[in-house]
Amino acid sequence: MLGKFQIRTDLALDAKELCEEMATPHHSRSEKNQNVRKRNRAGVRKTDTRIRGVKVEEDTDEEREIYTTTVTIETENGAKAMGKPIGTYITMEVPNMSSPDEDYHREISMELAEHLNTLIDGRKDSVLVVGLGNREVTPDALGPDVVNNLRITRHMMKEYGRMPNGMERTGEISAIVPGVMAQTGMETLEIIRGVVEETKPGLVIAIDALAARSTKRLNRTIQITDTGINPGSGVGNHRNAINEETLGVPVIAVGVPTVVDAATIVNDTMEELIAEMDRSDHMRLLGGTLGTLDYAEKHEMIHELISPHLNTMFVTPKDIDETVKYLSYTISEALNIAFSHSINE
Amino acid sequence: MLGKFQIRTDLALDAKELCEEMATPHHSRSEKNQNVRKRNRAGVRKTDTRIRGVKVEEDTDEEREIYTTTVTIETENGAKAMGKPIGTYITMEVPNMSSPDEDYHREISMELAEHLNTLIDGRKDSVLVVGLGNREVTPDALGPDVVNNLRITRHMMKEYGRMPNGMERTGEISAIVPGVMAQTGMETLEIIRGVVEETKPGLVIAIDALAARSTKRLNRTIQITDTGINPGSGVGNHRNAINEETLGVPVIAVGVPTVVDAATIVNDTMEELIAEMDRSDHMRLLGGTLGTLDYAEKHEMIHELISPHLNTMFVTPKDIDETVKYLSYTISEALNIAFSHSINE
Amino acid sequence: MLGKFQIRTDLALDAKELCEEMATPHHSRSEKNQNVRKRNRAGVRKTDTRIRGVKVEEDTDEEREIYTTTVTIETENGAKAMGKPIGTYITMEVPNMSSPDEDYHREISMELAEHLNTLIDGRKDSVLVVGLGNREVTPDALGPDVVNNLRITRHMMKEYGRMPNGMERTGEISAIVPGVMAQTGMETLEIIRGVVEETKPGLVIAIDALAARSTKRLNRTIQITDTGINPGSGVGNHRNAINEETLGVPVIAVGVPTVVDAATIVNDTMEELIAEMDRSDHMRLLGGTLGTLDYAEKHEMIHELISPHLNTMFVTPKDIDETVKYLSYTISEALNIAFSHSINE
Amino acid sequence: MLGKFQIRTDLALDAKELCEEMATPHHSRSEKNQNVRKRNRAGVRKTDTRIRGVKVEEDTDEEREIYTTTVTIETENGAKAMGKPIGTYITMEVPNMSSPDEDYHREISMELAEHLNTLIDGRKDSVLVVGLGNREVTPDALGPDVVNNLRITRHMMKEYGRMPNGMERTGEISAIVPGVMAQTGMETLEIIRGVVEETKPGLVIAIDALAARSTKRLNRTIQITDTGINPGSGVGNHRNAINEETLGVPVIAVGVPTVVDAATIVNDTMEELIAEMDRSDHMRLLGGTLGTLDYAEKHEMIHELISPHLNTMFVTPKDIDETVKYLSYTISEALNIAFSHSINE
Repeated sequence: MLGKFQIRTDLALDAKELCEEMATPHHSRSEKNQNVRKRNRAGVRKTDTRIRGVKVEEDTDEEREIYTTTVTIETENGAKAMGKPIGTYITMEVPNMSSPDEDYHREISMELAEHLNTLIDGRKDSVLVVGLGNREVTPDALGPDVVNNLRITRHMMKEYGRMPNGMERTGEISAIVPGVMAQTGMETLEIIRGVVEETKPGLVIAIDALAARSTKRLNRTIQITDTGINPGSGVGNHRNAINEETLGVPVIAVGVPTVVDAATIVNDTMEELIAEMDRSDHMRLLGGTLGTLDYAEKHEMIHELISPHLNTMFVTPKDIDETVKYLSYTISEALNIAFSHSINE
Repeated sequence: MLGKFQIRTDLALDAKELCEEMATPHHSRSEKNQNVRKRNRAGVRKTDTRIRGVKVEEDTDEEREIYTTTVTIETENGAKAMGKPIGTYITMEVPNMSSPDEDYHREISMELAEHLNTLIDGRKDSVLVVGLGNREVTPDALGPDVVNNLRITRHMMKEYGRMPNGMERTGEISAIVPGVMAQTGMETLEIIRGVVEETKPGLVIAIDALAARSTKRLNRTIQITDTGINPGSGVGNHRNAINEETLGVPVIAVGVPTVVDAATIVNDTMEELIAEMDRSDHMRLLGGTLGTLDYAEKHEMIHELISPHLNTMFVTPKDIDETVKYLSYTISEALNIAFSHSINE
Repeated sequence: MLGKFQIRTDLALDAKELCEEMATPHHSRSEKNQNVRKRNRAGVRKTDTRIRGVKVEEDTDEEREIYTTTVTIETENGAKAMGKPIGTYITMEVPNMSSPDEDYHREISMELAEHLNTLIDGRKDSVLVVGLGNREVTPDALGPDVVNNLRITRHMMKEYGRMPNGMERTGEISAIVPGVMAQTGMETLEIIRGVVEETKPGLVIAIDALAARSTKRLNRTIQITDTGINPGSGVGNHRNAINEETLGVPVIAVGVPTVVDAATIVNDTMEELIAEMDRSDHMRLLGGTLGTLDYAEKHEMIHELISPHLNTMFVTPKDIDETVKYLSYTISEALNIAFSHSINE
Repeated sequence: MLGKFQIRTDLALDAKELCEEMATPHHSRSEKNQNVRKRNRAGVRKTDTRIRGVKVEEDTDEEREIYTTTVTIETENGAKAMGKPIGTYITMEVPNMSSPDEDYHREISMELAEHLNTLIDGRKDSVLVVGLGNREVTPDALGPDVVNNLRITRHMMKEYGRMPNGMERTGEISAIVPGVMAQTGMETLEIIRGVVEETKPGLVIAIDALAARSTKRLNRTIQITDTGINPGSGVGNHRNAINEETLGVPVIAVGVPTVVDAATIVNDTMEELIAEMDRSDHMRLLGGTLGTLDYAEKHEMIHELISPHLNTMFVTPKDIDETVKYLSYTISEALNIAFSHSINE
C-alpha cells in the first residue's frame, strides 16, 4: 500500500481514515493533518459504509463535547482493508479531556463505563485487569497507573464471600502489572497466560498506552475494543497478540494514544511538503513536474531520508506526566463504575 | 512454649538462640537483648550441637568484619524444635553494612555471591528471580528494588542464542515483581506458579524483606536458605509457602530483616522488665514474690496488655529509605556476580 | 514530669489528656489506652477548663461521625502545662477515615476546608504550601503526596492575571517539597525561608506526618493549628520551629499522625504492666509492695530497659501505603476547596 | 538566519557545526545528518579557528573511545555567531555510554570528574548541586536522579566539623531538586536564588537534561560549561538564565541531551528532502528548478507545514528509562569523585 514504509497506527479511527484516503485520488484528498471532523447535529447517527465489510456509526454529544465513533469490522475483507481484526472498536474523542473540572471528568468516566459494559456484556463476575506498559517511562505508564487506582476485590470476595457492608456489590476483580520484556526477560503474553491459567478469570481487560498517527489524537482519544491487543501495537510494540485466541479468555482492550511514532510524524509532514510543492505556483508553471515522480518513487525518497533511529523513538508532549495522571484517574474510575453490580442489573 | 502469644521470627539465627534459651533455666539465661556473640579468633569454625538434629557452623572474618553462621537442620526433630523446615540456612552478619565505602560493599557482594553459589549448586542455566514485597511500603520494597538493578538476560539469550560480545556469559535470567495481595487480589503463590508453569525455569530465587525479633539484627543481616519462603514470614506475612513443594522447582530465599514486629518488641521489653524486677533489691527482700507468678501467668498478663493493633504493625528505623537502597544494590550486585559463568566453572 | 524519658506527642489532644492525667492520682486514672471519649449528644458543645489558660470545645457530628475538638491555649501558663505554644489547635477525629466511600471523603474534605478557612481567616491571596517529609519513606510521604495533587496557580495568575475561563477563581497558590536534611544537607527551615524571602507569600501552610502517642489515633486524626511546626515534631523530628517567628509570615500546620514513636509505645505498655501488677491479687496480698517503688524509681527501671535504638524508630501499620494515599487525596482536596474564592466571599 | 523558525540546540557542539555550515555554500555542505567526525590519531589536538573569537580543541582517546571537544568562546563576536555566552564548553562524546560494563562506566566517571575539576578550579569547599528537571517525566528526570545518588555532606560537616573516620575528606556538599514551574508555581530561578541567599554556597553545579539537534547525539554526549544554564535550554525550556549574573555565585552546568525537539527533527529531515530533490536526476533535467526557490521561501514552506503542536513536543527513545538511570549513576559518581579532597590536592 505504501511501499516498504509501514504507517504505524493503533487507532481504528486512523485506519478508517487512511483507507478512505487511499481510495480517493491524491489531488482531491481532504486535509489529512487538519483532521476535519464531519460533525452532525447532536445525537444524529450517520452511517458510513465506504469500505465493504466495515460499518461505522457516529454519535455526537454536543453538550458534553464527547464524540463517539463505533467501527465494526464484520468480514475478512474489511479486516484486510483496515489492517485490523474482525470486531468492535468504540472510540471516544474528548477535546477537553485535560480540563481540570472534576465533575466533567466524572461524566467522561460514566460514559466510558457505559461503553465498557456494552463490550463486557454482563461477563463481570471475575475479571483480571492487566496494566500493560513500562511504569518507568512516563507515556507508557498509563496501564500501571490505572491498576494503581483500581478497586481490587477478589481477595476480599474469596475470604468473606461478599463485600463488607456499605461497599458496592461487585465481582472478583484482580489485577496485574506484568512490566515489559526488558524488565522481566519474559514476553508479556507468557506472564499473563500463566496468571490466567492459575486464577481462571472469566474476562481480561488490558489497559495500554497507544501510538497515534497524528498529534491531533493525543491524550484526548479513548479506544475500547473486544479484539484484545494486536501485535505491534502500543508504545512498547507488543510482540504477541493478547486476545481470546492466545489466552483462551475474552480480552477487552482499553487504549489511549499518548505518543506519536517519530518516523510516522516525519513521514506525514514530508508528504504534506510534497503535496504543497505540487500545488505551488512554481510547480504549476512547470506543469507539475514533481507530480510526474510517481507515488512509489516519492516514498522511496522519503523512506531513505528517515533516519533508522526514528523507528525506535516516539514523540510526546512536555506535560505528559500530568496528562497520564488524569487519564489514569478517568479510566480507573470508569472501570470501578463499570464493575459494580447495580441493583437494576 | 510461650502461651498464646506467638514470637515472630523469620531468622533461623533467632530461632536457634530462642531454642537454646528455652533449654536453659530462666535465672541463668544469657542476656537475650544484649545478643552477645560468641566470637572466636578469625577463621576458626565452632560446631554447636546443643539441639539434636541441628548442626551449626560459625565462620568469623575479623578483617572484613563479616560473621557467617550456617545452620543445617537435618532431621524432623530438629525442624520441630526450630520451627523451621529441614534445610540449610546461611546467615551473614555485617555490622558495618551501612558503610558508604563502595569497595567494602563489593566485598560483601562477592562473599554473598559465593554463599549463593553454594546453594545454587550449578543450577544457573535458567533462573527466575522473584522480588517479593510491596514496592510502595519502604521497608517492604527490598525485593522489587533488587529486581530493578538485576541484569536480565533471558530475552537476549532467546533472541541471539548468546550474550553480545564483550558481555559476561550467563544463563537465562528472568525476573518478576508479583506485588502483594492488596494490590493484585491474588496470592503471590498463584502468580509465581503461573509464571513458572509458562516459562519453566530450573531454579527460583526469591528476595524478601523479613521481620526480626530484635532491633539489633536490623539491616545488617542477610539470610540465604534453600528452603524457600515459609508461611507467615516476611514483612507482609506470606500466606503460603513458596518452595519446591508448592512450585515444583527448587527455591532459594534471600532475606534481610528490615522491620521488627511491634508486638514482639513490646513483649521482649516487658519480659526484661519482669526479669529485672525479679532481680531487684526490693523483690529479693520480698523473697522474690513475683517469681511465684509462674511463667504462664506472667505471659498471660503481658499478652492481655499488648494492644491487638500491634499485631498488624511493624517497627522500622527512620533512615529506612537509604538502608533499603544500599541493601538492594548489595544484593543485586551479588546476584549478578553469582549468575555469571566464569571461565573456570 | 516524667523523669528523663520524654513522651513524644505532636497532638495537642494527647497533650491535653496527658496533663489531665498528671493532675489525677494514679489509682483513679481513666484507662489511658482505652481512650474513652466523653461524647455528648450531637452538636452540644462542652467546655472543659481543668487546665488554667487552656480552653477546650468539643463538637460532635454523630451523623457524619466526625468528632472535632478545638483546644485554645491562651496564656503562658497554659503553654507551659501543655508543652505547646499559645494558639489554636483544631483536631478532627474521623474513625471511618479509611472508608473507600468517595462521597464520604468529599464530606470530610469539605469539613476540613471549613476549619482551614477559620484559621486562614481570609488571607488566601498568595499562599505557599510546604509538603514536609521524606517522599521515600512511606509514612513520611504525606506532605509531598498532598502537594502532588494540589491545584498550583501562581504561575498562571502571574502570566494571565486571572484563571482561564471555566476554572474557579483562586489566589496565587505555590508549593514546595523541601525534602529532609539527609537528602539536601540543609535545614528545612533554611530552604523554606529562602523561598519565602524570594516570593513573599502572604501565608504558609505546612503539611506534615506526625507521631502520635497511641496507635488509637493513627490515620484517623487531622490536626490543624495556627502555631506552625514545633521543633521535635513530625516523623522526622524537625530541628527548627517553622512559624511566624522564624519565617516572618503566618504559618498554619496540617498534620496527621501516621506513626507512633517506638519508645513511646513500649513505655506506655510497660506503665500498664506496672499498674496491672499493682492491682493484681498477688500484689494486694503483698500489701501492694510494688506500689512502694516510687514513680521515679519505676520510670528509671523502664527507661533503662528501653533499647536506645528504639528512640530512632517508629511503629507503623502494614497498609500504610494505601492509608497515606487516601489521606493525601482528602487533604489536597480540602486545600483546593479552601483556596477557591467562592461568589459569597 | 533561518527565518522565523528557531533551531533549538543546547549543545555548543551543535552550534559550532551549525555556524560552520552557515558559512559554507549549500551545495557543498557536508552531510549534516551523517555527522562525520573529523577524527585524528589518538591524542593529537586539532585547533579549528574557522569562527573568529571561538577556539576549538579536540582530544581523541581511541583506547577508551571517549572523544572530547573543548569549545572556548572568547569574544562577543564569537558569542553572537554561536548564539551562546562567552565561556568554556567541554563536550565528551562516548559512543558506548550505554555499555553495561561497570568498569568502563567508572572510567567515564573519572574522566568526567577531571573535566569537572578543571572548571571547578579548586572552589569546592561548599557546593550546592541543583538537579533541574521534572522527576515525573522520564527524559527530564536526569537532574533529580543524579541528586538522588550524590554524597550529601553539608549537614555532617556542620555537625561534626569533619567527616566520620574512614570516609573521604570532602567539602560541604548540599543539593536541591526545585521541580518545574507547573509543580511549584514558581520560577526555578526564584527557588534556587532563595536557597543560595540562605546558605551561601561558594559554587553551584546544575544538572540538566538537554535537547539535541539530532538523534545521533542522544544519550552519549555530556556537556560541561562554566556559563551556567541559558534561557530556553533544557527539556523544559528554562525561562531564565541560571548563572553567576542571576545568582551571584559561579554556576557550572552539566547536561546530557536525552531528547530531540520534535519540530527540529521534522525540519532537518525536510531540509534533507529538499536537498535530495535538488540533486536528483529529475531535478537536474529541469535545470534545478527547485533550486530557484530561494532559501527563505523554502523555509517559509517548511515552517508552515510544521504543526504548531510540534513545538511543545519532544522525541525520545523507547528505552529512555534505562538510559537515564545509567547516565545518572555515571554523573553522580563523577561528582562524588570530583568533590573528594585527595591527599595530593
